Amino acid sequence: MEKERCVIVGGDAAGMSAAGQIRKRRPDADIVVYERSGYCSYSACGMPYYIGGLVDSERRLVVRSPDEFRSRGNIDVRVRHDVLAIDIPKRSLRVRNLENGREHTDFFDKLLIATGARPIVPDVPGAGAEGIFSLGTLETGISVYQHLLGQEPRKAVVVGGGYIDLEMAEAFCLKKLDVTLVDRAPQVMGGFDPDIASLIGEAITQTGTKLLLNEAITGFETDSGRVRAVVTENRTIEADIVVLGLGVRPDSGLAASAGLPLGPKGSVAVDRRMRTSVEGIWSAGDCAQVVHLLTGVPVHIALGTVANKAGRVAGITMGGGDAVLPGVLGTAMSKHCRYEVARTGLNEREAAEWNIPVVSSTIRSKTRAGYYPQAEDIHVRLTASKESGRLLGGQIVGGQGAAKRIDILATAIQGEMTVAQIVDLDLGYAPPFSMPWDPVQIAARELLNALGGE
Amino acid sequence: MEKERCVIVGGDAAGMSAAGQIRKRRPDADIVVYERSGYCSYSACGMPYYIGGLVDSERRLVVRSPDEFRSRGNIDVRVRHDVLAIDIPKRSLRVRNLENGREHTDFFDKLLIATGARPIVPDVPGAGAEGIFSLGTLETGISVYQHLLGQEPRKAVVVGGGYIDLEMAEAFCLKKLDVTLVDRAPQVMGGFDPDIASLIGEAITQTGTKLLLNEAITGFETDSGRVRAVVTENRTIEADIVVLGLGVRPDSGLAASAGLPLGPKGSVAVDRRMRTSVEGIWSAGDCAQVVHLLTGVPVHIALGTVANKAGRVAGITMGGGDAVLPGVLGTAMSKHCRYEVARTGLNEREAAEWNIPVVSSTIRSKTRAGYYPQAEDIHVRLTASKESGRLLGGQIVGGQGAAKRIDILATAIQGEMTVAQIVDLDLGYAPPFSMPWDPVQIAARELLNALGGE
Repeated sequence: MEKERCVIVGGDAAGMSAAGQIRKRRPDADIVVYERSGYCSYSACGMPYYIGGLVDSERRLVVRSPDEFRSRGNIDVRVRHDVLAIDIPKRSLRVRNLENGREHTDFFDKLLIATGARPIVPDVPGAGAEGIFSLGTLETGISVYQHLLGQEPRKAVVVGGGYIDLEMAEAFCLKKLDVTLVDRAPQVMGGFDPDIASLIGEAITQTGTKLLLNEAITGFETDSGRVRAVVTENRTIEADIVVLGLGVRPDSGLAASAGLPLGPKGSVAVDRRMRTSVEGIWSAGDCAQVVHLLTGVPVHIALGTVANKAGRVAGITMGGGDAVLPGVLGTAMSKHCRYEVARTGLNEREAAEWNIPVVSSTIRSKTRAGYYPQAEDIHVRLTASKESGRLLGGQIVGGQGAAKRIDILATAIQGEMTVAQIVDLDLGYAPPFSMPWDPVQIAARELLNALGGE
Repeated sequence: MEKERCVIVGGDAAGMSAAGQIRKRRPDADIVVYERSGYCSYSACGMPYYIGGLVDSERRLVVRSPDEFRSRGNIDVRVRHDVLAIDIPKRSLRVRNLENGREHTDFFDKLLIATGARPIVPDVPGAGAEGIFSLGTLETGISVYQHLLGQEPRKAVVVGGGYIDLEMAEAFCLKKLDVTLVDRAPQVMGGFDPDIASLIGEAITQTGTKLLLNEAITGFETDSGRVRAVVTENRTIEADIVVLGLGVRPDSGLAASAGLPLGPKGSVAVDRRMRTSVEGIWSAGDCAQVVHLLTGVPVHIALGTVANKAGRVAGITMGGGDAVLPGVLGTAMSKHCRYEVARTGLNEREAAEWNIPVVSSTIRSKTRAGYYPQAEDIHVRLTASKESGRLLGGQIVGGQGAAKRIDILATAIQGEMTVAQIVDLDLGYAPPFSMPWDPVQIAARELLNALGGE
């Protein structure tokens, strides 16, 4: 019997998680990974900290190198290789070596498409100018870093108001640049309800970053091919460096061209075992859909946590084991200077989209005992089902120690707990860490009252 | 109809939580609180930080003063009043005013006994000497503080290896004293399994505190009534100040003398609504029992979180509402300099006592992404039922950000989750806070393997 050949397209979180799980179960399988960039298994989420100077080398963002995968796991990682096409009937792939331009055909018994996502680039004049970056691969992060070193920009504009934008604004603050964050939306952080988003906006402003909302960009002014300013509907903002953080789209072209069905936002359609509709072909990570735990409906959520989990499940099932990813809540967090933000589950807008009657309330409390040094404000917003009292979502903004409390709420949602049960949780307390009632419980007590309970 | 008279004996966490809940439901009731000490509603847990100089005044530990309770809640708090006896048939109390020595009789329709706990003092020679303290009331904390100011001690000995002992050792370290921690047990922190306790012991040693285990104290050497040294079975340790942190016993003498049944360790027996067996009499807080959520058996766990929750439930039911305290897990946490520790649920020894077959495993990971500044070691130990795979307990020791992760585990236990479900949790991730797999999930994956799952 010939050795089984498992081919993985894409060598970051999902792809390499899967590779490890396959190897664990199939010591004899051939495992080949094609990765378009020059790196595999790196932390894309770490780029803002590398750019901001908190991480001293881009190499530290690489969890494991191709050589390490080869020597420790007998996993054949080929970086700088672009998979051009998949021929499903022939079980073959067309691959180009980006170093020398040569192409070859490879075959697979099992295939995982883990091609990730691509940043959205706005179709406006000047978007291709030098000094304008969309964070995607580690290479882009290195380009931003080198631009900062070589060009010594003084004015940075971050376009977008999401997680990465907050983090890039922080990075530029750390580099002592003059920073403006521009968002076309009426609030930053679209995943948050307006009251919490407004607090996040205040926090951004308090760190010295200029915040412009309700301003869509219409183009860029350039000078000899270099960006000079960002132009919005209302004004022109001088800029020596621009980062576009407008979200991402699944990089599912390869899968689509092969005829694989697509799901929400063009993500590859898969079941909860990460199997596509074609026997022997899986997809996982930022290119693939996942199920939302609360609605049971497929969604596209590009997050490192999800990519790792989906890759693990794909690898287990590809290796002959069984696992499912029950679903995700879109739990996410970010930090801007001394402010932390986090969310999980459904916000009010999302609940309304799903026609789920909800009650929400927001409280302000402290991250530590009020008398303990560095006790800072924390705002917690909870959303619960009006009918069942079950927790459906949580949003947090506050000082050090605020954001990771989202995990209590994510766990409670996954445990199908009611707000009353959150009041009863036996959470940890000591003055340096909390108050006898943790802020999430104070929020739960408030919401319980709003729901008409004790 | 006469106004209902609710009398509360003890004005700290449980008593004052109850008072607030009664007032909320019974605007017209008379609410009287008798408190032996000079303060009500103070944070006993905050004393080590006040003593260590992190909190600038003992007044900051007082959440609300008697005057504030009177003016804002119409709650009549009488500090420096000792309740000497309860006459159940007559529904009366004998009360002494400690300021002037006068006694009077008061009556109640509803009574809450929230008398707290008393520190255990060893019966050895010299235990009453000046310079030896057992932390109980805020007054004792103030005495320790004043002793530090007035006597300028240089050598401190902390007797005991529990939460408060770690915190007092930290306080003395902050005050630049030479600190020795002596414990008769073979490990510090009896609530932890030996491997984690050993890591805690190492952490204590690394901060410069001397740690002596397996050493019972046999007495104290004194000089003109002042402590000079702590004597153990093996040696004599010079000491200018000694703090005894040997645990507490329920202060249930008043309840026992009145004929109320007692439960574990002499705590007042109550149901999950905090009702004693006598109609109209409740008990809550460090003097009363609670139910352990995992065993369903009454236990005595003296913690501020439990006292607050039990007091709330007592107050709701005293006020005519309904609430139950489903049970507690003994979730607790502490900090010693830069090390954080936390636990919840059952450890291996406790599981064995209850004849529950379990599997445990301990992992080491990082508190943040490995490349992020101040990423520190975190050790997580999980214990699960061998039969059902349900999580039963967790223990954590590590650097900043380690301890509060215990809340994920406490919530998962309360949600009756299996270890496999913890692997699937959609927890928050960003490099400053975590890794894509949170350390508790890395521990869950390890334990899942040990349990024979994927």
